[in-house]
Amino acid sequence: MTSSTATLLISCPDQKGLVAKIANFIYSNGGNIIHADQHTDFAAGLFLTRLEWQLDGFNLPRELIGPAFNAIAQPLQAEWQLHFSDTIPRIAIWVSQQDHCLLDLLWRQRAKEFSAEIPLIISNHPNLQEISEQFGADFKHVPITKETKAEQEAKQLELLHHYNIDLVILAKYMQVISSEFISQFPKIINIHHSFLPAFVGAKPYHKAHERGVKIIGATAHYVTPELDAGPIIEQDVARVSHRDSVADLIRKGKDLERVVLARAVRLHLRHQVLVYSNRTVVFA
Amino acid sequence: MTSSTATLLISCPDQKGLVAKIANFIYSNGGNIIHADQHTDFAAGLFLTRLEWQLDGFNLPRELIGPAFNAIAQPLQAEWQLHFSDTIPRIAIWVSQQDHCLLDLLWRQRAKEFSAEIPLIISNHPNLQEISEQFGADFKHVPITKETKAEQEAKQLELLHHYNIDLVILAKYMQVISSEFISQFPKIINIHHSFLPAFVGAKPYHKAHERGVKIIGATAHYVTPELDAGPIIEQDVARVSHRDSVADLIRKGKDLERVVLARAVRLHLRHQVLVYSNRTVVFA
Amino acid sequence: MTSSTATLLISCPDQKGLVAKIANFIYSNGGNIIHADQHTDFAAGLFLTRLEWQLDGFNLPRELIGPAFNAIAQPLQAEWQLHFSDTIPRIAIWVSQQDHCLLDLLWRQRAKEFSAEIPLIISNHPNLQEISEQFGADFKHVPITKETKAEQEAKQLELLHHYNIDLVILAKYMQVISSEFISQFPKIINIHHSFLPAFVGAKPYHKAHERGVKIIGATAHYVTPELDAGPIIEQDVARVSHRDSVADLIRKGKDLERVVLARAVRLHLRHQVLVYSNRTVVFA
Amino acid sequence: MTSSTATLLISCPDQKGLVAKIANFIYSNGGNIIHADQHTDFAAGLFLTRLEWQLDGFNLPRELIGPAFNAIAQPLQAEWQLHFSDTIPRIAIWVSQQDHCLLDLLWRQRAKEFSAEIPLIISNHPNLQEISEQFGADFKHVPITKETKAEQEAKQLELLHHYNIDLVILAKYMQVISSEFISQFPKIINIHHSFLPAFVGAKPYHKAHERGVKIIGATAHYVTPELDAGPIIEQDVARVSHRDSVADLIRKGKDLERVVLARAVRLHLRHQVLVYSNRTVVFA
Repeated sequence: MTSSTATLLISCPDQKGLVAKIANFIYSNGGNIIHADQHTDFAAGLFLTRLEWQLDGFNLPRELIGPAFNAIAQPLQAEWQLHFSDTIPRIAIWVSQQDHCLLDLLWRQRAKEFSAEIPLIISNHPNLQEISEQFGADFKHVPITKETKAEQEAKQLELLHHYNIDLVILAKYMQVISSEFISQFPKIINIHHSFLPAFVGAKPYHKAHERGVKIIGATAHYVTPELDAGPIIEQDVARVSHRDSVADLIRKGKDLERVVLARAVRLHLRHQVLVYSNRTVVFA
Repeated sequence: MTSSTATLLISCPDQKGLVAKIANFIYSNGGNIIHADQHTDFAAGLFLTRLEWQLDGFNLPRELIGPAFNAIAQPLQAEWQLHFSDTIPRIAIWVSQQDHCLLDLLWRQRAKEFSAEIPLIISNHPNLQEISEQFGADFKHVPITKETKAEQEAKQLELLHHYNIDLVILAKYMQVISSEFISQFPKIINIHHSFLPAFVGAKPYHKAHERGVKIIGATAHYVTPELDAGPIIEQDVARVSHRDSVADLIRKGKDLERVVLARAVRLHLRHQVLVYSNRTVVFA
Repeated sequence: MTSSTATLLISCPDQKGLVAKIANFIYSNGGNIIHADQHTDFAAGLFLTRLEWQLDGFNLPRELIGPAFNAIAQPLQAEWQLHFSDTIPRIAIWVSQQDHCLLDLLWRQRAKEFSAEIPLIISNHPNLQEISEQFGADFKHVPITKETKAEQEAKQLELLHHYNIDLVILAKYMQVISSEFISQFPKIINIHHSFLPAFVGAKPYHKAHERGVKIIGATAHYVTPELDAGPIIEQDVARVSHRDSVADLIRKGKDLERVVLARAVRLHLRHQVLVYSNRTVVFA
Repeated sequence: MTSSTATLLISCPDQKGLVAKIANFIYSNGGNIIHADQHTDFAAGLFLTRLEWQLDGFNLPRELIGPAFNAIAQPLQAEWQLHFSDTIPRIAIWVSQQDHCLLDLLWRQRAKEFSAEIPLIISNHPNLQEISEQFGADFKHVPITKETKAEQEAKQLELLHHYNIDLVILAKYMQVISSEFISQFPKIINIHHSFLPAFVGAKPYHKAHERGVKIIGATAHYVTPELDAGPIIEQDVARVSHRDSVADLIRKGKDLERVVLARAVRLHLRHQVLVYSNRTVVFA
């Protein structure tokens, strides 16, 4: 299983023969499929699939796979993405003052739980510089005020380009990202510290305590212009009781936040997530 | 443990010596405490406790326990309730067309999972009559329209009085109860088929599917005039995925609804739930 | 989605082109695949797949699908099963004295959570006759002693044949089934009241209490000659604490047992379970 | 709540008046109880309690609390421990080659999730030295072979005394501790990477994969001479499927191990755990 692989993510209107046609494309070129997942949303009439095959022994050179598959995809009106497992994506993690998600992601990357580089940490506070640098990432302090937001987002965007970043992870960044920014850099995963759609926005643990819920949650989602309303990738929950103060919810929530975020990031990096209609298909 | 017990539920402003004073009251009268639970909400300055002791060997006759304890409670500004384990509460279950919660509660009562009688089932539809009667409960069909609501609620209230009912369980009753009714009969537990406060109101599974959540929930709560906003007694959740249609959410949700409702009812009947500030303390 | 479907379950040595060959078989005969799941066990070199397609518009008559597919399967050294969704399997539920799993399965069948008939209940005790008959099933009392076991198993086998039974569900039957019986009727699902392989055999809740575990479980598995060692289909767990007596574990366990068993039965009846090396692949 | 507190952990034969007598002791000396928890094991005839009160305003000087309480405890045949919240315990973490539990504990200590010092890390491998020192702990490499075990354990014991250690945490230490060692230093918490009592001993994830379980677990327990058989403090579980290889179980297990161990350590350090009959009462 150490050979490099190619992965196709495809969505198209449902019709007969899709599995056969796509599998034939890979087989006829000598590919060995190691994962094949399908989902049909019958209500939407949509077929979604993910195929991963070994490049070892595949007859098409990499640069021709896309064009060749496009000839099949076009008559099917398919949207598709092609990824190679040995292309290592580059991540920027954005943080505020809390370190738990940052440390967790840096540790998992070092432990090879996901295949990515993390060359850049951006924060609106200076205090996580040391930990960033211990893991070999550059740390950029970009303070934000209401007045400087547009200007600072321009600076952030420039950093992303300079570091050649593929994915931004908001690891408790605690700032709203503007629609303008998202339109220019849409690959952003956020961790929200509630079981969305409950407790959208600020201070969800305070709201959860006030409401007296018996279970708290965390939600990892792609960022869209509407606050905390993007496609959900992963969620998880933990039991709480009347004994738990807001501080206890925050403490318990940290354990949720870091595992939920890490699972979402891993799924994304392995190209196991397809988005449609503001929802995700997760081939896990 | 087969001896009858008395249970005191107490809430009062926090102050020194509360545990000692209350425990002394029971000990000095010869009582053997078998359960003692406390909770202090430091933010609210409130002390809440539940004490259960064996009546066997207790020196005070039942009718004097309340008055005697009141002499202690008054200077503490305490609110309190006194319950005896051999007083069997009488339940009316209100249903609509779905049978899963009803059957589950009837089965648990027969299996002695909780100590209560269920003499009365009320429904706005006729179809659950047979199952009600198989378990020995009277079934009353009280159809409701917008126009007849006030009049029918009067009829429902009359039935509750006639059957000497202590607790109403809305076991997927699917109708909003009026504030007027609640003010006249406030002991009502409802099961809501979502992880409140997400998806308040009608069709929560449709909303959950539309939002693309990865986890669904159910919530048992006391009914208050504001819809689905009463004190939460119990919640639980289940994983779902993109493979689950709305029908699958409904099916999976049924398993949640019946256990969450049953747990809440059992906690209530054992006097393990204290309400304050629209929240519950659950001594479980 | 109301059209009848065919389902192929296939396992064979892994090799290139399997997905393509099998999908082509269905497509070239005009079938519309609605579910396709694969799994490759790389360590074992084994490929396992489940394909479900609509029979509406499929060009092969039913009786020819098997023979036609066999021509493809043989060179692949594939083992396969073919099922039609409108063939309704017939279930016998075996019980002892506890009613919770029995009632649950009968209720789910009536609620159409799974497509099956339940014409026969067999018990070594007489007390669940009434409930069986309320749901329209014949009830057969087959008492068992050490001395009469062989003879009574012969009688049970005869009943299974007489009622044309496809699947036996041990819904807390509490008796060990002999190897001889299993060899003659191997389609048996059991619910064991522990998180296997912890607490094999009798009185698992007593053992769990003695060991002081913080979580209890239930396990649904196919029955094999070795006690509680067959392929696991489904498991689930619940939290317990020092407050829970053995009676509490039994009560909480009932809720686990019935949902775990029901999920396993549903998966089996929908042909979503493949067995190999005493393990299951569950395409859920 | 920032005042220092005293905590009494008591177990004694059950009898009337225990709550009153113990609460009176604290009240009559001017103490304000902030937490009081009881448990009665009726089968064992044992009463267990935990009381925590504020030292601010308490009339007895610290050194007299124990002797004074002993006068009450002796006639009750009570065993008891007394702890002060401002006594900071000192922890030694023992590791092997895996860093996830170590890093997690060091991070939680720095984040003040528990009140303790961690001055010493001991390992039979050299590779976690850097991370230990980044968090300010001394790192001691104590390699172990079958032949050197007794001698090296003597060295470990000496280190514990030298560093004035109160608690040893085996954070994936992967070595069996001898009975001799345990008898000399019994305060040891271990994390075992299975849902005990399933898969005692080495390679539990391999065994779990082989058995085909659908759920894996982790167990934190006090160490006793019998391997993996000590009193369980905390357990948790995670779902797995046929898709998960042994490597996946190990990866998923790490997330379980670190949270289960951290919860157990926090409970122990807050004196919320009482042990009797090889089981724990956890006042959480």
